[in-house]
Amino acid sequence: MSAEIICVGTELLLGDILNSNSQYLAQELANLGIPHYYQTVVGDNIDRLHQIIKIACQRSSILIFTGGLGPTPDDLTTEAIASYFDTPLEENEEIIKDIREKFAIRGREMTKNNRKQALIPQGANILPNLTGTAPGIIWNINKGKKITILTFPGVPSEMKQMWRDTAVPFLKSEGWGQEIIFSKMLKFRGIGESALAEKVSHLFELTNPTVAPYASKGEVKLRISAKAKSEIEAQQLIEPIASEIKKIAGEDYFGYNEDTIASVVGELLKQKKQTLTVAESCTGGGLGAILTEISGSSDYFLGGIISYSNDVKINLLGVSEANLVKYGAVSEIVAKEMALNVKNKLKSSYGVSITGIAGPTGGSTDKPVGLVYIGIANPENEVFSFRYTFGEKRSRDLIRYLSSSYALDQLRRQLISS
Amino acid sequence: MSAEIICVGTELLLGDILNSNSQYLAQELANLGIPHYYQTVVGDNIDRLHQIIKIACQRSSILIFTGGLGPTPDDLTTEAIASYFDTPLEENEEIIKDIREKFAIRGREMTKNNRKQALIPQGANILPNLTGTAPGIIWNINKGKKITILTFPGVPSEMKQMWRDTAVPFLKSEGWGQEIIFSKMLKFRGIGESALAEKVSHLFELTNPTVAPYASKGEVKLRISAKAKSEIEAQQLIEPIASEIKKIAGEDYFGYNEDTIASVVGELLKQKKQTLTVAESCTGGGLGAILTEISGSSDYFLGGIISYSNDVKINLLGVSEANLVKYGAVSEIVAKEMALNVKNKLKSSYGVSITGIAGPTGGSTDKPVGLVYIGIANPENEVFSFRYTFGEKRSRDLIRYLSSSYALDQLRRQLISS
Repeated sequence: MSAEIICVGTELLLGDILNSNSQYLAQELANLGIPHYYQTVVGDNIDRLHQIIKIACQRSSILIFTGGLGPTPDDLTTEAIASYFDTPLEENEEIIKDIREKFAIRGREMTKNNRKQALIPQGANILPNLTGTAPGIIWNINKGKKITILTFPGVPSEMKQMWRDTAVPFLKSEGWGQEIIFSKMLKFRGIGESALAEKVSHLFELTNPTVAPYASKGEVKLRISAKAKSEIEAQQLIEPIASEIKKIAGEDYFGYNEDTIASVVGELLKQKKQTLTVAESCTGGGLGAILTEISGSSDYFLGGIISYSNDVKINLLGVSEANLVKYGAVSEIVAKEMALNVKNKLKSSYGVSITGIAGPTGGSTDKPVGLVYIGIANPENEVFSFRYTFGEKRSRDLIRYLSSSYALDQLRRQLISS
Repeated sequence: MSAEIICVGTELLLGDILNSNSQYLAQELANLGIPHYYQTVVGDNIDRLHQIIKIACQRSSILIFTGGLGPTPDDLTTEAIASYFDTPLEENEEIIKDIREKFAIRGREMTKNNRKQALIPQGANILPNLTGTAPGIIWNINKGKKITILTFPGVPSEMKQMWRDTAVPFLKSEGWGQEIIFSKMLKFRGIGESALAEKVSHLFELTNPTVAPYASKGEVKLRISAKAKSEIEAQQLIEPIASEIKKIAGEDYFGYNEDTIASVVGELLKQKKQTLTVAESCTGGGLGAILTEISGSSDYFLGGIISYSNDVKINLLGVSEANLVKYGAVSEIVAKEMALNVKNKLKSSYGVSITGIAGPTGGSTDKPVGLVYIGIANPENEVFSFRYTFGEKRSRDLIRYLSSSYALDQLRRQLISS
């Protein structure tokens, strides 16, 4: 009994999109303890789809398809599956109703093409899609051996929601996920991957749980994974190791699993009943956007000023024109003024500012691309500044993201030490 | 004659890494005009590798492997290929010398494990690796039909360098790359995928160029792909179709290829020498962030006010308290006030505002999650508003993204009609 992931789409064969669906599903299969030895990508072509299904049925028993469920004529996944198993397609009234309702909400009419999305093989069950118009199917077939077919749309957000809400409970009801792999991801900032890895290298030899490092933008992660009969048993294996790591990492540890630097800062502000405003130059609103990704951020985030031009810095934010002329917009003194002024003007406990050169143009020898100043004004009207040089070779996007996330990390360090 | 990409590695089956190698190679094959119908991922297992090679030889003639060339015992790609074709492995002196030198540069001794990387099938040529210790092979075999085997390490930077430096010249010497596939992606907003597809359905039957639809968040795309001897020739095939589509789509067409809604709005503002400010509530800075993703946006984007709390709306942005109490922050009248006030306060040609309920909490029967008002104030101080219901089931992230991108699309429509 093993699963096989089959991603359908000519856009994958042309290299137009990255196959992130395979990675997500592979992780999920590992979590459920379902063996998985093959992944295949094939285009929107009925003969090749038939060949792939034939091969997959010989070597696997759970076939997971993504893509090719759309309303256009080149979407052939459902049709290919039905015809391979000599099963007629039937229009499903429930799906028609659902699609019609979704169009009505958006004030549009359902098109004739969408009717195609309501066709499912006789005997298959619907795998509901909450947001998109394309549902999938769950279908157990007996073809000498039992074959289970699951289909998902290619849109990652829809596929993931359908996987979590319906496919996982179904697979568990079929007996999978008895022995689970359970992981905890610890997250760190202000330390590099190799430096952290050296500090905890003795833990990399463990076998259950295992510890493995990952690096992502401005952040390092350690994944602790345990194999056990239950989540509770796995947590008992994981927690002593997590505690040891947190002790070693000190303030560089900031959270775990779904925690983000913005959610951690938000929790700290809520605990302290304090509020925050921002003054942004090179990030142009990006810091505010990251803070307000968190539902409930209105408890502590009041708003801010996007002072992209010098006029806005002077007239709305009250930055001294003399300082702008003398030191330039990207300077310690302007960063400090921005943080203090936004805090006082908008009446918050903390004010955070960012001013820098995101590039790719606008740099000079004195002030290269990647130079960023961050200002933090605290409830006592003390103002701190931090200078970063993220490097000229980094992209505009990355420099802007690092600016916002380092600003939040500095605020976090202030909040835990105050 | 077609190619097949075979990625070898248990880490891919566990979902530990994203398969970016497949995407890169797929794009490169398309550029060379080499047909490519299948991609496979398989673990480091000799029997399963043999099965995959057998299947691939039946349906493809160029087999491109990545991964499994390392020095450890679980790296089996070369061994599996040689044994499948009943060909002995031979230690290659040139490779041994190269590996020894690379270790010497790093001040290390070559390990015994690395000798394994010098074994290649009798008759195969070396595909040199400039940076890493694992070379690949290029091997033409006659097995009833001609099969060409290319192997690369899994490390993307090494694989890409080897592809460019050696594999591409080799494939061109075999006659490929005479004909290229060249594409143009047209982008649309304010129309659904199926509605647009219906309007241009007669073009889906074309064979050169081909036209295919794609949908992404809030946006629909049509890709026109032509097969030709040169880029210029391909463009000559593409342009008449592109013109026809643009005529059919009218204002719903907004740009092509790398264009984004923010870059298109930016170009229009620059052409008209006009400026823009924003007042954001539920997007919390996200609209400003999208606008300032564009390098050079300071030519037209002055800044804005993130009025997340009502206090900031009243005190900094000057929204009428009476209106906030009577109509609520998420209302047409407040959206209009926000747009007009930010424009006048920050002295720009246009002011754009967003106020809405991004969820997942905070909705009511009257004002459900997903209800968003957008305001646009123009240089004549006229103010327009737009009401969207993005639907309660959409995520906070998506509702916020759609709010910003629809606001920009409405501004674009104003700019092209004014």
